[in-house]
Amino acid sequence: MTSAGISTGLLSKIRTPRDVQEMDAAQLEQLAAELRQAIISTVSQNGGHLAPSLGVVELTIAMLSSFDFEEDKVVWDVGHQAYAWKLLTGRADTFHTLRTKDGVSGFPKMAESPYDHFGVGHSSTSISAALGLAVARDLAGKKHEVMAVIGDGSMTAGLAFEGLNQAGHMDRKLLVILNDNEMSISRNVGAMSHFLSRNLSSRWVRRFKKDLETVLNSVPGIGEEMLNYAKRSEHSLKSFFTPGMLFEAFHFNYMGPVNGHSIKDLQKAFKLCKDLDEPVLLHVMTKKGKGYEPAESNPTHFHGVGSFEPETGQAKKFAALSNLPSYTDVFGSTLCNMARKDSRIIAITAAMPEGTGTACFAEQFPDRFVDVGICEQHAVTFAAGLATQGLRPVVAIYSTFLQRSYDQIVHDVCLQNLPVLFCIDRGGLVGEDGPTHHGAFDLSYLRHIPNLVVLVPGSEAELQDCMATALAHDGPVAIRYPRGAGYGVPLRPEPIVFPIGTGEVLQQGEKVAVIAVGSRVQPALEVSREVAEATGRQATIFNARSVKPLPEQQLLELAATHDTLLLIEENTLVGGFSSGVLEFLSDHEALDGKRVRRLGIPDAFVEHGKQKELRAMLGIDKEGIRKVLLELLA
Amino acid sequence: MTSAGISTGLLSKIRTPRDVQEMDAAQLEQLAAELRQAIISTVSQNGGHLAPSLGVVELTIAMLSSFDFEEDKVVWDVGHQAYAWKLLTGRADTFHTLRTKDGVSGFPKMAESPYDHFGVGHSSTSISAALGLAVARDLAGKKHEVMAVIGDGSMTAGLAFEGLNQAGHMDRKLLVILNDNEMSISRNVGAMSHFLSRNLSSRWVRRFKKDLETVLNSVPGIGEEMLNYAKRSEHSLKSFFTPGMLFEAFHFNYMGPVNGHSIKDLQKAFKLCKDLDEPVLLHVMTKKGKGYEPAESNPTHFHGVGSFEPETGQAKKFAALSNLPSYTDVFGSTLCNMARKDSRIIAITAAMPEGTGTACFAEQFPDRFVDVGICEQHAVTFAAGLATQGLRPVVAIYSTFLQRSYDQIVHDVCLQNLPVLFCIDRGGLVGEDGPTHHGAFDLSYLRHIPNLVVLVPGSEAELQDCMATALAHDGPVAIRYPRGAGYGVPLRPEPIVFPIGTGEVLQQGEKVAVIAVGSRVQPALEVSREVAEATGRQATIFNARSVKPLPEQQLLELAATHDTLLLIEENTLVGGFSSGVLEFLSDHEALDGKRVRRLGIPDAFVEHGKQKELRAMLGIDKEGIRKVLLELLA
Repeated sequence: MTSAGISTGLLSKIRTPRDVQEMDAAQLEQLAAELRQAIISTVSQNGGHLAPSLGVVELTIAMLSSFDFEEDKVVWDVGHQAYAWKLLTGRADTFHTLRTKDGVSGFPKMAESPYDHFGVGHSSTSISAALGLAVARDLAGKKHEVMAVIGDGSMTAGLAFEGLNQAGHMDRKLLVILNDNEMSISRNVGAMSHFLSRNLSSRWVRRFKKDLETVLNSVPGIGEEMLNYAKRSEHSLKSFFTPGMLFEAFHFNYMGPVNGHSIKDLQKAFKLCKDLDEPVLLHVMTKKGKGYEPAESNPTHFHGVGSFEPETGQAKKFAALSNLPSYTDVFGSTLCNMARKDSRIIAITAAMPEGTGTACFAEQFPDRFVDVGICEQHAVTFAAGLATQGLRPVVAIYSTFLQRSYDQIVHDVCLQNLPVLFCIDRGGLVGEDGPTHHGAFDLSYLRHIPNLVVLVPGSEAELQDCMATALAHDGPVAIRYPRGAGYGVPLRPEPIVFPIGTGEVLQQGEKVAVIAVGSRVQPALEVSREVAEATGRQATIFNARSVKPLPEQQLLELAATHDTLLLIEENTLVGGFSSGVLEFLSDHEALDGKRVRRLGIPDAFVEHGKQKELRAMLGIDKEGIRKVLLELLA
Repeated sequence: MTSAGISTGLLSKIRTPRDVQEMDAAQLEQLAAELRQAIISTVSQNGGHLAPSLGVVELTIAMLSSFDFEEDKVVWDVGHQAYAWKLLTGRADTFHTLRTKDGVSGFPKMAESPYDHFGVGHSSTSISAALGLAVARDLAGKKHEVMAVIGDGSMTAGLAFEGLNQAGHMDRKLLVILNDNEMSISRNVGAMSHFLSRNLSSRWVRRFKKDLETVLNSVPGIGEEMLNYAKRSEHSLKSFFTPGMLFEAFHFNYMGPVNGHSIKDLQKAFKLCKDLDEPVLLHVMTKKGKGYEPAESNPTHFHGVGSFEPETGQAKKFAALSNLPSYTDVFGSTLCNMARKDSRIIAITAAMPEGTGTACFAEQFPDRFVDVGICEQHAVTFAAGLATQGLRPVVAIYSTFLQRSYDQIVHDVCLQNLPVLFCIDRGGLVGEDGPTHHGAFDLSYLRHIPNLVVLVPGSEAELQDCMATALAHDGPVAIRYPRGAGYGVPLRPEPIVFPIGTGEVLQQGEKVAVIAVGSRVQPALEVSREVAEATGRQATIFNARSVKPLPEQQLLELAATHDTLLLIEENTLVGGFSSGVLEFLSDHEALDGKRVRRLGIPDAFVEHGKQKELRAMLGIDKEGIRKVLLELLA
């Protein structure tokens, strides 16, 4: 099982996506096997979203054999499942570079290929975007097909519902392919999920629908059959619902369910879809991880995975870059410890119990854990509701996904000054997932919200302190921390509550004050020690920790006692931490005569690559800091 | 019809909300009449959300007579309809201060009353918040009722769907009262709306549900009746749907529809609801504007209205504060002019064609106008889809509501550098609608998004120029302008395209450079002229216009040639325009030796009041600017 397969089999013969249309059934089956091999081979090396992509191999092939994507358009929802698509649309030769710097992106990306018709990364945008493509087509008087492929998990988000609602209303020709694998990243939640996973009497639905008008007058027996069906099922009226009925309610024509691993069945279904000039929802049943036993049996682990031994699925030994606990782990265990003592704590995740480190909490405190599904907006407003009643909800959502809750953070939490604690993992550069996933903006989109306290721990140990401090504060708090391992700063036996609006001088020096937050504090400290050893010049290192309110008194003192301020953050330089420092010092007339340098993420979307590579590229790794520090100390 | 009524009738006798429970049917009817009188009387003076509040007078009375809100809790969605609630829960005496500075808020507000259990202003938060209240109740082992009152328009937003989906899943005792008046602010859109407005066979639904199990074995006739019902209706299977069926699909018990103007019917329904220990959706039919003829016949106009003659509904003459065209008007007419010449333009609004000034566009270009309903997220992603196909979507959404699209602006539009034009009305302080509606954050939440151009016209004439400039730019642009009338700056015959990243020196002076944006430019100019006349000292007045990218070259020149910079914006001082200027000048070492003063909205939520009062309060009106300018020129 090597990537060499790509250069020999059918896959290597595909020059344009149209070539798939020429293949016979046996060739298509072979192609499916080759795609799986290529995907497993590359992901086992580079890591990536394995299980979702394996699940739609046949679906992708059937789409390419049934439609003409020189004209037709598809929007893949989230894009976790698009590896087969990439391999079949011009990227087989470069697929081995998946998720590596300057290599193939892990997500559909318009700039990468003309066949990627819409870029994705966040969930549930596909129906809205595809509707845009369909309306544009109609305005231009064109006739091509437009489709969206969306998972059942993504279907639970409000945005998908909004798109569905309007697509049904506008009544344009639009194909929504529901890729139903009965889970999104983890087990699904919500009524929609129950609904979709109910046993279907698809025969009944199809027959009923197709034959209704003729049947009504001639075969009264169908009424009885319907009633018998209802009788067999569990809840009186509710049993009448099939997913089809829900989607029909939104003025979609429902078709399915279709076996998503039968290319032939899918081709037949697509043929029927093409004949309809209206919104169609095609319900396709797939198995996440299909064709690779380790992924089939543990689809949550193999949803997104690091490098592994392809034969066994075992994580590669060297994959563990660090023996140090990750911020995620520290957050999870600290939350459990705190919850044991504080019954007000209730934890909320949006479909990511594993990713956010709340899975252990869910096990220990099942009554105080809520997984809302891919519903970041609801998560926050729900938390606000809980907080009005004296509870202390902890909302654990990645930085980039919390963007979807911006309005709820402003309007439902902070305006009412409610004590919701946001624990924001993946703040800063996340690495291989790239621009859709970097947490590059959170300090900027949070800092200007009144009443919100924003804490950024300078180490994994300080994450614990920040959590204790937040719980002792009667108002909204956001704690933002990076993806990955901590710095080996020893955890305290008991976290401390520090005064909000204070930071910590880690090293007293002179002339240059390095004022850093979050992931940049420890590298700055290390660099400064190394530089001091080498040059004898010791800068002051200050861990600012409290981005809002700022450690005002300490900043004034630092400004008063140093010529030069070096501000470092892993956030955009626009409106973030260092902007706050400039605002404060300027408003207090404390900038005069100071030399100020700012290091951070520039005002541009940052591509994918290893965290280490990206930090080096942006000059915010140790080398970058060293270079600037030496210059400033000179 | 005067507010004196409050001090005499039944309303004046209500000491606590429980008093409503003691009233008999005739008294409750009288109370309804008094409430209407009080609402019409106050709103005709102060302006406000008349039609929604008139529509739920009986509903509010029935709720207070059926539940005990010393324990029970209600979340009003949006809060446009909560005037009767305010009058009956301790605010009858102060209701005449509605929407005035330091007076009663136009929306439910926790800080105002213990009976306002959750603050609102934005749409569709109620189910999520109420579910939070219900889960908190259950965790505490309490038994009180929790309910949400949500309009059919609000039900179309994704957040409502997310809340509904999870509430059904969690299966807690929760009452969702669907206030169905077949419109939200304007006519509703979307499949959900079609769905709700379909004729119901409620008898059938109720009977079928209640009797199903027994009936199935004994009365086979019901099967035929069902089929007959289907046969009568228009679309085969689709006709089987009633709103009940939709909500049952989400595991809600559906009850209704109930006549929302019959207190007795409502009381009966509430009694039934109380017996159910599960999520219940009670479908209440109301008429917007009920009981006041002008509002009944023009509910869109009377949704939110300025002061008017209560006898006729005619707007009061003095209500028109200015004869000058509003920014909204200028935007609407300019958009139409441009669309006549540029067929790529397509306009999108989120349920506010009138408010955003796109109603005229809708009339003239019906094929190129899309009202997505209260779905700001979808509006933006849909626009992104359109833009990929060469169209130039113009998304017209108020500043505060666009907050809900923050993620879509980042992820779907700007990351892909798509030419979507955001026309953002109500930037800055909006006045009487208060903190949920001020556009205080947009420059801060937009400025840090890479690829986005942010323009802020200094006059109504420049709004036209900004629009022309935006359309000439091949990438995303946001134009942000204030609520209300322009400054009388003459419109050009043809708007000009100016170089992005440039501003305009409106007045050359010395020593002090006033660098202003948006609504603060003309006041600054006027003040400076007045001050020059009075003192002989002329400051330079610079209209910065392009907040992103900044007019960099001009800023460097201004900094180089002036001692003092006065930066003025109507946006939070955190992360907004002036922060950008500080970032830029600091990074270019151009701040040294400069005195910098910043005027803007402080880091706090600003309460309601007239725009004029609020600007004065914050020191950003002419007087405030004058005071600072005199000090700086001294």
